[in-house]
Formats: sequence, C-alpha cells, structure tokens
Amino acid sequence: MSCNWGTELWDQFDNLEKHTSWGIDFLERYTKFVKERADIELSYAKQIRSLSKKYHPKRNREDESRYTWFVAFAATLQQLNELAIQREDLAENLNAQIVCELTRYTQELKTERKSHFQDGRRAQQHIESSWKQLESSKRRFERDCKEAERAQHVSDKIDLDNKTDGEKRCSLKARQTAQQKQQAAEESRKDYVTSLNQFNQDQHQHYHTLVPVIYQRIQDMEERRIERIGEAMRSLAEAERKVLPVVSRCLDAMMEAAESIQPRKDTRQVVEVYKSGFDPPGDVEFEDYSATMRRSISESSYLDNRTEERRQSRKLWPFIRKTKVYAHTHTQGADETHLEESPGCTQVLFSPFSC
Amino acid sequence: MSCNWGTELWDQFDNLEKHTSWGIDFLERYTKFVKERADIELSYAKQIRSLSKKYHPKRNREDESRYTWFVAFAATLQQLNELAIQREDLAENLNAQIVCELTRYTQELKTERKSHFQDGRRAQQHIESSWKQLESSKRRFERDCKEAERAQHVSDKIDLDNKTDGEKRCSLKARQTAQQKQQAAEESRKDYVTSLNQFNQDQHQHYHTLVPVIYQRIQDMEERRIERIGEAMRSLAEAERKVLPVVSRCLDAMMEAAESIQPRKDTRQVVEVYKSGFDPPGDVEFEDYSATMRRSISESSYLDNRTEERRQSRKLWPFIRKTKVYAHTHTQGADETHLEESPGCTQVLFSPFSC
Repeated sequence: MSCNWGTELWDQFDNLEKHTSWGIDFLERYTKFVKERADIELSYAKQIRSLSKKYHPKRNREDESRYTWFVAFAATLQQLNELAIQREDLAENLNAQIVCELTRYTQELKTERKSHFQDGRRAQQHIESSWKQLESSKRRFERDCKEAERAQHVSDKIDLDNKTDGEKRCSLKARQTAQQKQQAAEESRKDYVTSLNQFNQDQHQHYHTLVPVIYQRIQDMEERRIERIGEAMRSLAEAERKVLPVVSRCLDAMMEAAESIQPRKDTRQVVEVYKSGFDPPGDVEFEDYSATMRRSISESSYLDNRTEERRQSRKLWPFIRKTKVYAHTHTQGADETHLEESPGCTQVLFSPFSC
Repeated sequence: MSCNWGTELWDQFDNLEKHTSWGIDFLERYTKFVKERADIELSYAKQIRSLSKKYHPKRNREDESRYTWFVAFAATLQQLNELAIQREDLAENLNAQIVCELTRYTQELKTERKSHFQDGRRAQQHIESSWKQLESSKRRFERDCKEAERAQHVSDKIDLDNKTDGEKRCSLKARQTAQQKQQAAEESRKDYVTSLNQFNQDQHQHYHTLVPVIYQRIQDMEERRIERIGEAMRSLAEAERKVLPVVSRCLDAMMEAAESIQPRKDTRQVVEVYKSGFDPPGDVEFEDYSATMRRSISESSYLDNRTEERRQSRKLWPFIRKTKVYAHTHTQGADETHLEESPGCTQVLFSPFSC
C-alpha cells in the first residue's frame, strides 16, 4: 500500500492538522519530561554533595589522619563527591543537549507546520473562488436561455393569429426581441464554457499537483519530527550510559579504600601516640625506722616531693586521675626508698638535728 | 616495636578510655551517614517513579499505541520505573545490611567496652586499698620506733645520776617501760613487713597480669571495631555496585526502544487510520440549458439533493468544513449532470408540465 499522504489522504486536511498538532504537543511534553528528569538528577546530586560535605572532617586533626579507618572514610566521602559531580554533569547535558535543542526545534517545527497549512488554505480558497465563478456563469446561462425561450414563444404566438398591418409590426418587433435574447444566451454560453474549462483545469491542478505537494511536505515534516524524537531518546539513554563507567570507578575506589583498613596498624598507631615510655613502678623497699631513729621522715620526704612529682607527674600511675593522694604518698615512699642510698640526702636529713 | 596495649600503654587508662569512646562515636556517625545516604536514594527513587507515572499515558488510546515513537516513549518510562525500583532496593539493602547491623553492633560494643573499663577500675581500687594498708602499718612502725627511742633516752638518763633506793626504783621502772616500747616497735615492724610484701605482690600482679590482660581485651575490641567499619564500607560499595548491571540493562532497553522508532512506518499508520478510500472529484460536465429549455432545473435538482448529499457527505471535498454552501451547490451541480442520462428522472422532470 502506498503511504504517500499527498495521494492517500487528499481529503483529510483537518485530520492531518489534528495529527500534526498532536505530534507537536508530544514533542513539548517529551521536552518537559527530560527537563524534569534533569531537575531530579540535579537535586539528587545536591543531596549527595552536601552529605559528603556534612561528614567530611571539619579540620583534619593530626591524630585522625594517621588511622587507616579514618582515611578510608575520608576517601569514601571524596568518591561520593565525585558521584555528585557526575550527576550534575548528566543533568547539565540533558538540559543542553536535549531540552534546549528540542525547545528550539519545536519552535521551528511550529513555524514550518503553520506555513504548510497556510499553503493548503490558500489552495482551497483559490479552488473555491474558481467554483463560484463557474456557478455564477452557469446560472447566467440558464437564466438567459429561459428568457430567450419565453421571447420565442411570444413571437411565434403573434405570427399565427394576426393579419392587420398594425399586428404585423408587433410580430416583427417580437421576432427582433427573440433574436436579441438568443444572441445574449449564446454569449453567456461562451462565458459558461470558459469558466467551466477554467474550473476543471484548476480542480485538476488542485488535486493532482497542489494538494499532493503540500501534503507530502507535511508528511516529510512529520517524519523528521519522529526522527528527531528518536534522536532525543537515544541521547537521553546515551547521556546516562556515559555516567556508568565513572560511577563504577568511584565504587572501585570506595572498595579499595575499605580494603585498605588495617586494624593492627591502627592500634599500633595508638601506641605511638600515647606511649609514655616509662616502666611500671618496681617494688617498694623496706624502711627501717628502728635503724635510723634520729631521722625525721616527714621532713625528709617533704623536702624532695615537689621535684619528685614534677619528674614523674602522672606517669607511674594509670589511674592517677582518681588517686592524687595515693600517687602523692607513693612517690613519697619511692622517694624515701632511694633516699637510703643518696648521701646528698642523708646530709640534708641530719641537718635538723645538727642544730 | 611491640604494639601490645597491655605492656606499652599500661599507664594510659584515661587516653584509652577517650580513644575507644571516640571510636564508638565514629561508629555511630558512620551509621548515621549510611542512613542518610539510604534516605537520599529513597527520595531519588520516589521522584523517578512519580516522573515515570506522571508521563505514562493515562488510558492507552488505540491510535496512540500504533505509532512506534509512542511505543518507544512508553518503553522508556517503563525502564525508568525499573531504575526507580533498583534505587529503592539499594536503599532497603543499605538500611537492612548496614544501618540495622551497625546499630545493633554498636550497642554490644558499648556494653563490652563498659565492662572492660569497669574491670580496670576494680583492679585500681584493689591496689589503692593495698597501698593504704601499707602506709598505715609503716606509719605505726615509725611512731612506735620514736616512742621506744624516747623511752630509752629517759631510762639511760635516770641510770646515770641517781644512787638512792627510791631513785633506783625509778630507774628500774623506766628500764621496764623502754623494754615494753621496744617490744611494741618490734610488733609493728612485723606488721609493716607483712603489708609491704602484700603490696609488692599486689602491685606486681596489677602491672604484669591484670592491666596487660584488660588492656589487651580493649585492644582486641578496638581491632574488631575497625574490622567492622571496613566490612560496612565494603558492603556499602558492594550494594551500589550490584545496581550497576541492572541500570546498564535498563539503559540498553531505552536505547533499543529509541532505535525501534520508524518514521516511515508511523506515517503509513496515519494513512491506514485516516484514508477515506474515495477518489478526488473528476471534471464537472457542461449542462446545455439551451437544448432542454422545457425543464425546471430548480425542482429536479431539489428532488434528489438529499439522497445525493447523504451518499457523498463530506467525502469529495477536503475543505468541506469551510465550504458548506460550496459543497452543497456543487453536489447539486454534479446531480444535474447525471440527470441527463437518467430516464427515471426525466419522467419526474416532465410531470409538473403534464398537469
């Protein structure tokens, strides 16, 4: 079956007008669809981006960045931000490559369509006026024929039943009238024939040249529109497809980051950060007050406490926070223990007694 | 370097408490992060789904589904809905596999951590009380030694410068007192030695058994936490990676849909839908009123107009809508032309004159 609108749909002007208008409506609807799709991508990207930002460490504390789990999380956030950028690019491409292009194209299409249907109406007006011309000349011919006929009747009747001179003059006059009417009818017949030929020529041109050409243009326009829709749908899928490899790379990077986590290394880091370097306290030694009864323990222990505490401040004892008194008295004890072997101290110790 | 918390960080109780607490904070922060990520995916999915729904044809009009471009768009929307489902599944997996799991795990971890640090404090309290015991017995020994010393001085002084019987009795009494004090000092010395040994034993156990064991448990706990963070990060990336192949298939399907568009086929469909099957009107024939002057055109044309118009209603003329009068008069004309060869009609035509 032929699918040429010019020949097959010659009498479907109104339906073609409706159909092509529906096509343009769809084009606008599809453009709106892609626009909304791009908006969704954009808001998604915004959310992802702000999520990444929200969880990114405000200021990278030195003791954070040395832990593998912390570094891995930072890397994940980095990749997440990359994903956001991809989505933003996608939205941008959809708007630039599809929405803007289709909007522009739709305007062109509307203009083209309008001009085609204007041509159609012009052709129609022309054939209509040609028809009116034919009608009027036909009616004139009909009227003239009737008048000529009536004049002939009158003339014949007078000829039959009158013999006087006066009556002969009447019949002569009637015959002249009849002849004039006959000539008039002959004239309008020529007119009629001319406009009949003109109309048939116009009508033939209308249906076999003008309408086919105009409708063919409308069909081409429609096929280009459909072709364009197809292109738009392809670029939509293509634009999204382009994102996939990058997304895939981001996810690989996230996976690597996760796999780079080393618990052992991290707990070793904790040792490096917090190790004091001191050894746990040794045994407390016995103090034989019975052997050195002249000494004043309290003074001697007091003497060196401050320096002692400064040197060992919060180092010997893990629970120092809760045991000020304990630590104090203990360091005092430790103090005394080695006072035993320190001659410098013994000098001091004896002084209170030497005066 | 050893990375054993029990031996290296024996005096860093407070810092380990801070560090492990920070680790749990991070665990909770990460869980919240994944939750928000899932929420974003869910809202994205909702938007995509409603977009697909919004543009899906309300009721599939018969004359829509026969056009390839229309079918292609419907397929695109279908795939878009599939993408939304994928995103919803992703959000669901993130919540079920990561958020819920980590929330549960964090609670367990908090409980475990609490018990470890409670053990630490218990050990600390024990060594503190052991120390107090040592202190008091040491002070007692010190005091008793002083008193014994003083008593000895008194006794010696009396012996030197008294010879009378009464004075001899005093000196005897003083010597007895000195002996008693000496014995008391001897007792508290034993006490002191006992608690000193007890303390040194406790202290050794504290730093070389209890603390190492407890801190080792804390380190194991910390390493399990970090291991768990790593697992969570892997599952996050994995869950997203699972989506990619499906997304890819959806995009392929969209591409196929776009490529299935055939403009030619669609315009042929338009022909099938709207073709009337009639041929364009032929030439209008000449009507010779001069040859049939007896006839009354108006009546005869009027007679058959209704049937004629019914048969040819809006078929011969594409522009009929705009040309009621024109079409009417034309069918009237066409009517007259074939009245010429219709004997049935001519009979009728003559009747008005025959009566």
